[in-house]
Amino acid sequence: MTVNLIKHAAEDSDVTFAARVSTQGGESRFNEASEKDAGLINYLMRDRHGSPFEHTSFTFYVETPIFVAREFLRHRVGWSYNEESGRYRELQPVFYVPADGRPLRQVGKPGAYSFIQGDYKQKAAVQGDLRRISTEAYETYARLLDLGVAREVARMVLPVNIFTSFYATCNARSLMHFLGLRTSRTNARFPSFPQAEIEAVAEGLETEFARQMPLTYAAFEANGRVAP
Amino acid sequence: MTVNLIKHAAEDSDVTFAARVSTQGGESRFNEASEKDAGLINYLMRDRHGSPFEHTSFTFYVETPIFVAREFLRHRVGWSYNEESGRYRELQPVFYVPADGRPLRQVGKPGAYSFIQGDYKQKAAVQGDLRRISTEAYETYARLLDLGVAREVARMVLPVNIFTSFYATCNARSLMHFLGLRTSRTNARFPSFPQAEIEAVAEGLETEFARQMPLTYAAFEANGRVAP
Amino acid sequence: MTVNLIKHAAEDSDVTFAARVSTQGGESRFNEASEKDAGLINYLMRDRHGSPFEHTSFTFYVETPIFVAREFLRHRVGWSYNEESGRYRELQPVFYVPADGRPLRQVGKPGAYSFIQGDYKQKAAVQGDLRRISTEAYETYARLLDLGVAREVARMVLPVNIFTSFYATCNARSLMHFLGLRTSRTNARFPSFPQAEIEAVAEGLETEFARQMPLTYAAFEANGRVAP
Amino acid sequence: MTVNLIKHAAEDSDVTFAARVSTQGGESRFNEASEKDAGLINYLMRDRHGSPFEHTSFTFYVETPIFVAREFLRHRVGWSYNEESGRYRELQPVFYVPADGRPLRQVGKPGAYSFIQGDYKQKAAVQGDLRRISTEAYETYARLLDLGVAREVARMVLPVNIFTSFYATCNARSLMHFLGLRTSRTNARFPSFPQAEIEAVAEGLETEFARQMPLTYAAFEANGRVAP
Repeated sequence: MTVNLIKHAAEDSDVTFAARVSTQGGESRFNEASEKDAGLINYLMRDRHGSPFEHTSFTFYVETPIFVAREFLRHRVGWSYNEESGRYRELQPVFYVPADGRPLRQVGKPGAYSFIQGDYKQKAAVQGDLRRISTEAYETYARLLDLGVAREVARMVLPVNIFTSFYATCNARSLMHFLGLRTSRTNARFPSFPQAEIEAVAEGLETEFARQMPLTYAAFEANGRVAP
Repeated sequence: MTVNLIKHAAEDSDVTFAARVSTQGGESRFNEASEKDAGLINYLMRDRHGSPFEHTSFTFYVETPIFVAREFLRHRVGWSYNEESGRYRELQPVFYVPADGRPLRQVGKPGAYSFIQGDYKQKAAVQGDLRRISTEAYETYARLLDLGVAREVARMVLPVNIFTSFYATCNARSLMHFLGLRTSRTNARFPSFPQAEIEAVAEGLETEFARQMPLTYAAFEANGRVAP
Repeated sequence: MTVNLIKHAAEDSDVTFAARVSTQGGESRFNEASEKDAGLINYLMRDRHGSPFEHTSFTFYVETPIFVAREFLRHRVGWSYNEESGRYRELQPVFYVPADGRPLRQVGKPGAYSFIQGDYKQKAAVQGDLRRISTEAYETYARLLDLGVAREVARMVLPVNIFTSFYATCNARSLMHFLGLRTSRTNARFPSFPQAEIEAVAEGLETEFARQMPLTYAAFEANGRVAP
Repeated sequence: MTVNLIKHAAEDSDVTFAARVSTQGGESRFNEASEKDAGLINYLMRDRHGSPFEHTSFTFYVETPIFVAREFLRHRVGWSYNEESGRYRELQPVFYVPADGRPLRQVGKPGAYSFIQGDYKQKAAVQGDLRRISTEAYETYARLLDLGVAREVARMVLPVNIFTSFYATCNARSLMHFLGLRTSRTNARFPSFPQAEIEAVAEGLETEFARQMPLTYAAFEANGRVAP
């Protein structure tokens, strides 16, 4: 899976200049964020003043299997997307197969599953079956295209582990909302149980977020990873 | 495919009472929509006063293949969704196979394709291959579950023609936006080229819309099927 | 100030049928919400599964001074509005003047003010000045209209305590978000400091919400009044 | 009135790389937008493929009277705001008074007014009355603050022609939607009748939009100034 930050207009000082218009009015000049800014950002996060975090923009290029993209694109507010189309182009034979360490068994009850390692037989079955079905489905897809069948029809045979690619643009607030729901490191009060594959994507997003907006990221961590 | 209107709070008079607060202030009583209302609704549609159409609510239950649901759920603004989860439940072996009349070939250039009937060989290949891959993929899915593999992993083998089910709630404005993009009956000025399967779903939505809000629907038709 | 519930399509069972499509698939019949539903709703609230709360609709008719409407209409996501227009109609001379019990002094620091009763002199000044300026401004407005000045120009003299009226449509999720920010009864973890006048409006909304969706309301209360 | 572009991440090539992921998949490199891009952008605009225009971000600092800000902040989708607060700071005595050329009379019927110059008497009344009421209201405001009355109470006397300041962040799609509704240069098919003051603000936004995204702007103009 791939998560590349393509462009961004997002730094900690974007939060504080937007927040200060409430209390000071007028136009602030851009500065490097300071010690004092860290306190203001933490206060905004804690008291759920979410709007100052919206004057920021991140655009990511993402490659994931379809079953992950389906979860990703459920995030609507503050997110924009453009995705590769199975109607407009011939899809490439790139399929997701879980690596050896991927836990394969779920235990526990709905809403609070945990996942543990599969045994040898399970691992062999998962990897073998996914490779076999993917190959067979793609060969069928290619043959239907050769026969002159429209791409939008031929693609119906393809499994949800085929890769897709998309651009996703968000702001820091909508990104934090995503991270709060799609990572399991959230605090005990608000547990989340994301599927491992989307959590891996979320971690890619999180790395870039932490790099570009370190004070905001620290405040997000300090306040239970709940988006304001 | 299935489109059922589950509940709604949407009638033409909802548009006019909301619009009249602008010009008359105060609280209007509900009435049956009248002749005069038809003119007001048409004016609002023509001049793109969209907000009065938002004080309405439709909840649909929809069953479609995944490749259709993926297009449907791209509609974000004014839409709410809850979908069947391949993580929380065992999916059922219901797959989409195009019926005999479904055009199988595309002609023309990107952005303006048209679709024509396939020949006998194409039809046989499409229907045969979809049935074969669907069956094989589902048998593999069932076997992985029997082996104790988690549902969220086993489902990776399933093709995008498997059915999913979801609830979708929208208002009249977001519904018209959907219809303008996902039906091909739109006027020449703003052509749309929806895939046949989502157009069939759109027609199900449209039937209910026309029934519940006939004056609004007539104004939508009269103004080029462009959402205000 | 006025808050009237004009229409709604919102009950507790709307939440549970939407939630159950995830785990059961297929179309649920509507039932009265049961004991079991209370548990499910509480789980959804606690674990921040917000989308099932969106398949609901409330339309309110509201009368408030402009300074309150300006705060109210800042709520964007899941809210639709139509408001009385000072361009399209002649505004009526109805002005807000704080009643005797309204605290008039703020103490404490920004972000955590508390409000205490004013003394006799403050109360007299506030009430007297508001009445005087409102009267004078409205007389000026009326005179400008008599002179043939356009409404959109004449209204520029009117103070922000003049009443406006609007329709607001939301769903249970966006309504809870409003209540969490615009009432002060929120728990200590997430304090809110709404202005008294918008809090009074929020309480009107809350009364209707509690009446129409008692299980959802109980879960909102039990989970710190934080919207899922 | 003031409209300053504070920061942006928006150029024509942002539209085309997002659009091309549909038809080409994979990650495009950034290039200067080319001749070919102009054609693609025009096609997207004409056929209402709106999402590629969303991977862009503009942040404006705006100063307007309250009656203009109230119209501006009605734009919800794809817009983020932070505004100066009359609760958190003492407002400054800056008031809007129409300049000599501002048309003062409306003729025609609701929904299609046009505005013409006022006579000498009207102009004198408007300018004199606004100055008088503004001064008197602000003196009252200042006196209430001196008496120890809370800012959130004292501000109730202030008229809607007092200036406020805010940051507004949007993307190219939401910006075009604003321009289509808040300027009168829109084509005959979709007429708009904005108040002169918000149109002046819209022109400030438009100048920056045209400068940063010239191909997109040209396509917007060529397609009737209707946002895709």
